[in-house]
Amino acid sequence: MDIEVVAFDVFGTLVDWHTSIAEALARVGRRAGIEADWPELANAWRALYHPTLNRVVEGGLPFQPLDVLHRTMLDQVADEHGLGALTDADRDELVLAWHRLAPWPDSGPGLTALRERHYLSPLSNGGLGLLTRLARFAGLPFDCIVSAELARSYKPDPRVYQLIPGYFGIPPSRVLMVACHPDDLVAAAAQGLRTGYIPRPAEWGPGGAAPPPPAEADYAADDLIALAAQVAVGEIG
Amino acid sequence: MDIEVVAFDVFGTLVDWHTSIAEALARVGRRAGIEADWPELANAWRALYHPTLNRVVEGGLPFQPLDVLHRTMLDQVADEHGLGALTDADRDELVLAWHRLAPWPDSGPGLTALRERHYLSPLSNGGLGLLTRLARFAGLPFDCIVSAELARSYKPDPRVYQLIPGYFGIPPSRVLMVACHPDDLVAAAAQGLRTGYIPRPAEWGPGGAAPPPPAEADYAADDLIALAAQVAVGEIG
Repeated sequence: MDIEVVAFDVFGTLVDWHTSIAEALARVGRRAGIEADWPELANAWRALYHPTLNRVVEGGLPFQPLDVLHRTMLDQVADEHGLGALTDADRDELVLAWHRLAPWPDSGPGLTALRERHYLSPLSNGGLGLLTRLARFAGLPFDCIVSAELARSYKPDPRVYQLIPGYFGIPPSRVLMVACHPDDLVAAAAQGLRTGYIPRPAEWGPGGAAPPPPAEADYAADDLIALAAQVAVGEIG
Repeated sequence: MDIEVVAFDVFGTLVDWHTSIAEALARVGRRAGIEADWPELANAWRALYHPTLNRVVEGGLPFQPLDVLHRTMLDQVADEHGLGALTDADRDELVLAWHRLAPWPDSGPGLTALRERHYLSPLSNGGLGLLTRLARFAGLPFDCIVSAELARSYKPDPRVYQLIPGYFGIPPSRVLMVACHPDDLVAAAAQGLRTGYIPRPAEWGPGGAAPPPPAEADYAADDLIALAAQVAVGEIG
């Protein structure tokens, strides 16, 4: 049973949100006359991501697009970290910074190699519009854009992992989920998807460490170029 | 207010379903020992499309993916036109022929020109998986794939035309809908989208005629290459 579609986590796995968001915060914050530890603030903003999205998955919060939730989280970070000088327009601009994140160096080449034999899609908590703009900005050659928004939920809601098998009319074993986050792969494997792990030790900044691949991973490689080579020779039977 | 996204009708506007489906019917039918007027049968199959989809839009039929409806329509054509020798596997193969349709000669170049300044998406009754496979087969460089399936309905349901403005967080006037079918453009204009018309006189086979552009059309050109040139110089203010 060949893999037809390769699905990718995006924030962290394909793009370096930490560096891009720290740069956006520095640009907008300095323009507003603020000095701060911008890389730390980028991480503070991102640290609210999983708790906030999990409230949607668990039913405690109605579904709202990620842009809306990013704004709510940013307002909280601004309150707690002395960024009160940021105007509404500044905050809107920062929310849109998540639509323009730099890729890791191997992302474009790795996807291009995988695209020779497979359809490529994100499977991300980013919205469909966000991901479309991000793909163009970061040079990610997707064939379609599948967002958790289409299930009106977020990962790790099982319905998100069922989207691609449903749209393509194929068993989940013909979809390979690629991510640097073990919990994403564990949730994908629970829905029958194949899984591929790559480490991104710099996801939260220099000097970080990557977790080991989960036991569920069908593939594990150092980067997307190496993963593409593994998948090309090692079709799972 | 610049156009950010150009959305395309697909069957007829970007791809020549008539020729491709007639060829698929001839191939599968002859293999099953049938002789028939294959171009006429392609049109008979397609003629059931609008009445069937309209029953879904009007609530008389629950939403079902286009592949499922294509199979129902094919069974009806087979019953009425002496194609009873087609097996289940033959019919499945024919339904999948709609995932592999040849583009019109100007489709690839026209989309490539429009993609220099805009994001491109289908806005089609085809399913997300169907459209993804078709885009690769026909060389259509979309940035994302928006299917009526995402509204669990079909055109001309207003909710289908509201999908792209919703996902991108933009007013409908920043979306340009391109089609060869006036009714599609009239329905898009009613939801506030900009509209572009091109004629496809050979949609139902050689010797056909195209309708005139509807009064609602913001752009009208002879083909997609000419339309791209119009849009590039004539941004609607």
